[in-house]
Amino acid sequence: MSITTKNLNSRSQPPFDLQEFLAARTVAVNRALDRFLPAANAKPATIHRAMRYSLFAGGKRIRPALCLAAAAACGGDEADALPLACAVECIHTYSLIHDDLPAMDDDDYRRGKPTNHKVFGEGIAVLAGDALLTQAFEIAAQSRGWPRYSHQQIVLEVARAAGSLQLIAGQVADLESEGTRISAPQLQYIHERKTSALLCCSVRLGGMSANCPPAQLRALTCFGYHVGLAFQVIDDILDVTQTSETLGKTAGKDVRAQKATYPSIVGLDQSRKIARQLTQRAFRSLRVFKGKAVALEALAQFLLRRDR
Amino acid sequence: MSITTKNLNSRSQPPFDLQEFLAARTVAVNRALDRFLPAANAKPATIHRAMRYSLFAGGKRIRPALCLAAAAACGGDEADALPLACAVECIHTYSLIHDDLPAMDDDDYRRGKPTNHKVFGEGIAVLAGDALLTQAFEIAAQSRGWPRYSHQQIVLEVARAAGSLQLIAGQVADLESEGTRISAPQLQYIHERKTSALLCCSVRLGGMSANCPPAQLRALTCFGYHVGLAFQVIDDILDVTQTSETLGKTAGKDVRAQKATYPSIVGLDQSRKIARQLTQRAFRSLRVFKGKAVALEALAQFLLRRDR
Repeated sequence: MSITTKNLNSRSQPPFDLQEFLAARTVAVNRALDRFLPAANAKPATIHRAMRYSLFAGGKRIRPALCLAAAAACGGDEADALPLACAVECIHTYSLIHDDLPAMDDDDYRRGKPTNHKVFGEGIAVLAGDALLTQAFEIAAQSRGWPRYSHQQIVLEVARAAGSLQLIAGQVADLESEGTRISAPQLQYIHERKTSALLCCSVRLGGMSANCPPAQLRALTCFGYHVGLAFQVIDDILDVTQTSETLGKTAGKDVRAQKATYPSIVGLDQSRKIARQLTQRAFRSLRVFKGKAVALEALAQFLLRRDR
Repeated sequence: MSITTKNLNSRSQPPFDLQEFLAARTVAVNRALDRFLPAANAKPATIHRAMRYSLFAGGKRIRPALCLAAAAACGGDEADALPLACAVECIHTYSLIHDDLPAMDDDDYRRGKPTNHKVFGEGIAVLAGDALLTQAFEIAAQSRGWPRYSHQQIVLEVARAAGSLQLIAGQVADLESEGTRISAPQLQYIHERKTSALLCCSVRLGGMSANCPPAQLRALTCFGYHVGLAFQVIDDILDVTQTSETLGKTAGKDVRAQKATYPSIVGLDQSRKIARQLTQRAFRSLRVFKGKAVALEALAQFLLRRDR
């Protein structure tokens, strides 16, 4: 099964407008985040300004979109998925703030703007990340919850994806791999944790918010895992092929930091092939939704073809 | 009501052995933390070694002891309180690791050992703190939960105490107050958030684990708030009066960092008087337990009289 627009539109449904979907969901997520967070002038104002600076720095809201699209595929109510979509975005933003610190990736720009520590200083940047991580759990706990997917299970889902065996494990392995030669399996270990874990968690939470049956949750898990890996392979490719201006963050960093990437290990062409294969695998897992996962399909295509 | 050993022992109960209580609870909490955390050699080993280094660095386990003592006062089962006691200790340890970073308090010693970033480097220290914060929610979500105090409410309790309006607000205000003249009310704002919030949360969680009635939870809230403030006033006094060797951390730091403290604002004698008054107020709030809160009473006394 190859992935083409024709393929996507060959079903007996009206063509799906992903740009409209993304624009509308970004507005909804931004509004909800604004409601969930303390006001910018809540005391102490510094921390709330710093949290909001990075949270509203123009992120693409990919994880919230995946969460909401998964809820839609399962026939859920978007309002039930929204807190969980916001929670994963808080986790994502916290991880970027901390990754950008001088002691880690030492990045000056993110999403085209100076990084959090460049604006607020390192101390406040550490605390803003801490606060967003904490906020994520406060928001997740305010979700609806079902007998099948209780608040207990939802909090465990978020904590495990963000914890020392997944998201943080990926960042640690990434830090430790700098300047060393690593193998493709080792690189996959990093990508699975650093990127795939939270993307997979995002779609799973969307399904949980819709009280989806176990078979759908398994399908979403498989979809999230493969889309997450493809996402990071594309990120590696874009770091080599795009300018900093297009990316809104420093391009070519991986090479300079002697970081192992898919292009550096298997070459550009093979990397593109791997990204396509992973996306195809993600597509196949959506069959169980019998054509109702149009938003997830469109997102997977979009993530494969993006140029930033 | 003055606080004396006589006063404490004037009830018709056998004298309470706090040292035995603390020793036994420390063993139980350490065992539980060891079970809850990934093994030290779980991949990537660096992060798990770093988490365990600070978590098992000989902390006094005051917050877990308060949590377990509160559960006992409410007639609860200690096993139900243990996960929550472990969760607050993870939060406390994460906050110490991040507070000790060069970008914050820049401390080289804690509990008599080199601080986390001195051993593992700044990048890993940031991540070890992040991981312990995340772990706290994973552990809290594994508590028992009751209809009155659901997992939702327990997670919200932890997230709010640790969040940008409480624990993190205290650290931000503390950072921002360095080298400036602040008033006693401003100092109280910092202490309420930086110390009292998590101590108060610890005793409240203990009560919640015992499914306590609302009147008991109110009493525990009042107790935790006042003991928490007293705790920080004593900390300020010890920073001036004790040696680094006794404290296991750098003494005299507050003066050198031009940090406002109770002794620097109201003097040593007045500070001691305030600590006694706060502890008396905490004592009074325990009347509702009709003599069953012996462990909490003994802890409040111990915290007032400690020399480290």
